[in-house]
Amino acid sequence: MIGGGLGGSELRGQKISDYTVRRLSVYYRLLDELEQQGVEVVSSAALAELAGTNSAQIRKDLSYFGTFGKRGRGYRVAALAKEIKKILGLDRTWRVVLAGAGNLGHALSMYHDFEKHGFSIVGIFDIDPEKIGQVWEGIRVRHLDDCEQVVREEKVELAIIVTPGGAAQEVVDRLRAAGIQGFLNFAPRKLRTDGDVQLRNVDITIELEGLTYALQTGRS
Amino acid sequence: MIGGGLGGSELRGQKISDYTVRRLSVYYRLLDELEQQGVEVVSSAALAELAGTNSAQIRKDLSYFGTFGKRGRGYRVAALAKEIKKILGLDRTWRVVLAGAGNLGHALSMYHDFEKHGFSIVGIFDIDPEKIGQVWEGIRVRHLDDCEQVVREEKVELAIIVTPGGAAQEVVDRLRAAGIQGFLNFAPRKLRTDGDVQLRNVDITIELEGLTYALQTGRS
Repeated sequence: MIGGGLGGSELRGQKISDYTVRRLSVYYRLLDELEQQGVEVVSSAALAELAGTNSAQIRKDLSYFGTFGKRGRGYRVAALAKEIKKILGLDRTWRVVLAGAGNLGHALSMYHDFEKHGFSIVGIFDIDPEKIGQVWEGIRVRHLDDCEQVVREEKVELAIIVTPGGAAQEVVDRLRAAGIQGFLNFAPRKLRTDGDVQLRNVDITIELEGLTYALQTGRS
Repeated sequence: MIGGGLGGSELRGQKISDYTVRRLSVYYRLLDELEQQGVEVVSSAALAELAGTNSAQIRKDLSYFGTFGKRGRGYRVAALAKEIKKILGLDRTWRVVLAGAGNLGHALSMYHDFEKHGFSIVGIFDIDPEKIGQVWEGIRVRHLDDCEQVVREEKVELAIIVTPGGAAQEVVDRLRAAGIQGFLNFAPRKLRTDGDVQLRNVDITIELEGLTYALQTGRS
């Protein structure tokens, strides 16, 4: 989670941090790449090097979910990729709507990596009459008033919020009422949701501040 | 850092994690907001509640940088905001270029939160003749060949990479040679840089995977 609190989840009574889940995503990408390159086995040391971490961390991250590989023999690339894919819930397609048909919404509607990772954009909402009716990558921009219908008919589970900050809370409340369970928020606003909902914030200025902190510390 | 390794930095021999720096950014935003609301003092418990963490974590995060506040008396909002602003290197303006004049570049060129946080976009580069010469928010899109000149004349220190994946490494290498020291990468590609350079990756699908992991774990 960026810009928000410090989240985590429980699995069989064990606390799994958001950072572990984030590392799983990184391992999955690397294993997928290795598989495409025809690599069959990778040592935890080599995978750690690629991921910018160490073997112990990888073993610990994976240990929450079962036993993978045998010490000294390395991991079977295809099998481990498949397991992590399942852990992350990526062995299926997730249906997503974009809330906000501004520039960022337009950029995301054309982001082909979504499909590659199992995320299918099935709706785009706005309230601007000039935007409504436009067709982006085969998806028609619809009025926010249609969200209940679209969420129900298209079985949507996730929404990406790219509205202006002032509109974000109302839009999240409406999409939540329509049945959306997970939100990725790009709007520069702290949002409230009820406990059953998953919310992550992407704050680009926080990422830039990580750079400025490091650059000015390196100099002083 | 998203989608990349697990970084950190050293300060007076102490290892400061990227997560500590990220939390400082969150504290800074909250303190800034409290200051605008006229709040003069905040307890660490109240600040922790707002940040989604606990008092001990806040005290630990701040302890790396000095002594702030007195136990039992809370933090003076304006003074602490000012200190964290300085720690993060935000007590000055940082000059930034956008590499890539596609949809995401366009969205970011219009992102007013940058100025508010001390980041000033002073150049936009592309290689597409149709893009070059367009003026976005007062900034003319220029050919990548002009990057050395712009970086030197405008004293640019940071670049945001929003090129297609296949072009990103070459663009980073050129901007690095031109003197850029910090990169925020949105291109879906793992990039190599030399040791003196700061690089962070923003991978939107990794953020979505944090949601899908949590949603499917909650159900199983």
